[in-house]
Amino acid sequence: MTDRIRDFLKGLPHEEPCLVVDLEVVRRNYEGFAAALPDSRIFYAVKANPAPEVLELLAELGSSFDTASLAEIEMALAAGATPDRISFGNTIKRERDIGRAYLLGVDLFAFDSKAELEKIARQAPGARVFCRILCDGEGAEWPLSRKFGCEPGMAEELLAEAAKLGLVPHGISFHVGSQQANTGAWDLALATVGDLFRRLEARGITLKMVNLGGGFPARYLKNVPLAQQYGQAIREALARHFGNRLPETIIEPGRGMVGEAGVIRTEVLLISRKSEEDPHRWVYLDIGKFGGLAETMDEAIRYPIRSERDGEATEPVILAGPTCDSADVLYERTPYPLPISLEIGDELLIEATGAYTSTYSSIAFNGFEPLRTYCI
Amino acid sequence: MTDRIRDFLKGLPHEEPCLVVDLEVVRRNYEGFAAALPDSRIFYAVKANPAPEVLELLAELGSSFDTASLAEIEMALAAGATPDRISFGNTIKRERDIGRAYLLGVDLFAFDSKAELEKIARQAPGARVFCRILCDGEGAEWPLSRKFGCEPGMAEELLAEAAKLGLVPHGISFHVGSQQANTGAWDLALATVGDLFRRLEARGITLKMVNLGGGFPARYLKNVPLAQQYGQAIREALARHFGNRLPETIIEPGRGMVGEAGVIRTEVLLISRKSEEDPHRWVYLDIGKFGGLAETMDEAIRYPIRSERDGEATEPVILAGPTCDSADVLYERTPYPLPISLEIGDELLIEATGAYTSTYSSIAFNGFEPLRTYCI
Repeated sequence: MTDRIRDFLKGLPHEEPCLVVDLEVVRRNYEGFAAALPDSRIFYAVKANPAPEVLELLAELGSSFDTASLAEIEMALAAGATPDRISFGNTIKRERDIGRAYLLGVDLFAFDSKAELEKIARQAPGARVFCRILCDGEGAEWPLSRKFGCEPGMAEELLAEAAKLGLVPHGISFHVGSQQANTGAWDLALATVGDLFRRLEARGITLKMVNLGGGFPARYLKNVPLAQQYGQAIREALARHFGNRLPETIIEPGRGMVGEAGVIRTEVLLISRKSEEDPHRWVYLDIGKFGGLAETMDEAIRYPIRSERDGEATEPVILAGPTCDSADVLYERTPYPLPISLEIGDELLIEATGAYTSTYSSIAFNGFEPLRTYCI
Repeated sequence: MTDRIRDFLKGLPHEEPCLVVDLEVVRRNYEGFAAALPDSRIFYAVKANPAPEVLELLAELGSSFDTASLAEIEMALAAGATPDRISFGNTIKRERDIGRAYLLGVDLFAFDSKAELEKIARQAPGARVFCRILCDGEGAEWPLSRKFGCEPGMAEELLAEAAKLGLVPHGISFHVGSQQANTGAWDLALATVGDLFRRLEARGITLKMVNLGGGFPARYLKNVPLAQQYGQAIREALARHFGNRLPETIIEPGRGMVGEAGVIRTEVLLISRKSEEDPHRWVYLDIGKFGGLAETMDEAIRYPIRSERDGEATEPVILAGPTCDSADVLYERTPYPLPISLEIGDELLIEATGAYTSTYSSIAFNGFEPLRTYCI
């Protein structure tokens, strides 16, 4: 929460829930990453928050962009990024979208399978490609399935194949898991990556780049290490596994760039109990899982929530959204402490909601409008 | 799948995934419910699919509408429903929305708590109210939490209170759980409701209406009982618990009305393995959890999926969506059997997707457009 957001919200009548993003925080985060990893290029993960103002600011600051779709590429270009600052980072691309991206000048593509590599070879001849490898994601708060990446042995073969297909085998990427609180997580992956670099070198293929992925956390309720600490851990791991032949590196912060920059304002619609003996009150907000808080799925992300009654005595409540969907409950297994004096009509501020909220929002479930974003 | 949908899709080039809803199936389902429960009024659950063509057809057929928000009330009115055919069925309402609904002529409101009752009394004096009671939802496929409803003892007190607040205590509602395959589920709830009717009668309060809720299933992979069987079980349960003093009843089918009427067409974007030894292929579609298939959450709903290669040998695959979100996996714990000969670029038809898909769709996650609906 910043004074700028507080002041902005004072002047904004509460009709619907909204997200306010403080661009000054985004700028500070960008500068923090740049200082922590001065030798890495920053590719902002557009999917975290593609608000035009956020993209324009980052483009102006010199950021590059990790994109998930043709639409995101177009947004990055519209915000002022040149195509050489754009990576098409989704390993699952519609073949014709690869061709369209290539025509727009994009020259850097992710893959993790033979079939995707062949699509890229057909649609983007001569482009640089990087292969994503599997990583176990231990220590991360938002679950990483095996959806992305392949086993290192397969990555080696595919990068060799890339050269045969007329592509440039440029590097390797991995992702340690979103909201990764363990700075050591990068070390394990970099050991594998260093090994792959050497095995491919022995086959006459010189990789240039390591994509360190995202995973840099936002501060929710728990304290998390600072960008500086991540930077140091990563620099040490790079030195350990690459010696004095350091590769180019890129990072893809999304949550770490915009998460803490955003605050959602919501209103308490109802407070109730299910019976006179019910040990927990239910507190219903005007935003829930389908209105932008999808990351409360399985109660994975626990946001800090502020009210004007902070400081008063609290008790744990079950927190739920406003839709007629029984799955639209935010925190039930671990009820959330809120002031006992909380009343219907009170405003709550859900902090660190700048990432993975506005675009996750359903288009019209239950007739509710998607979450509105204000960038200030 | 119907011939009409098949023919329509033949003429539609595949650019993005889409949902096609066959209005003839909706009409048939409406008539099926009307025949199965001739003495019940049908309140279509708008949230299941609020496409204007669906609402207009149902309004024309004489349906009433169960709405979750002011926006849904406005949609039902725009489709031609009169306010006396609209129920504001969400137990969590913004207070000013109650007042606006009342000004639009809506006179039937759900509640399950004292605070909500008081809001209705302030904003909609003299309106009819019904209290939702908790139901355990056993036998349902889509989880029902304790989010909606209160214990019967509390319902009795609140309905008595309603009269004191100048409202009309009109009835009781319950919900046996969505996609409820057990026709006996209504019996247990109706025993409680019958008892409540008698207890309130003894206090001088005569309730008139039982809202039997929704829960009527769509046919996904398993066979489900027909509307006729639900109708008979419900009629028997009503006779058992109300004798010859049968209350008015309403039902709120959503999934049962439109689920089977819809088919989503999707394209296979990628087929891959994570290593040469990977026992399962991964099949990535151009639609996933954030593009409309949210009900695959926890693999709850298992849709029938057709391809032009049906009849050929199959093997179980892991099915995932196109976004850069590792949670965007549809079926992994229980892989889904698809033809071994399946290829990238193949079209798949996901059946029984007329309900809870189009509006669940995220507005722009990863830059992907929300699911488009065609009503034919």
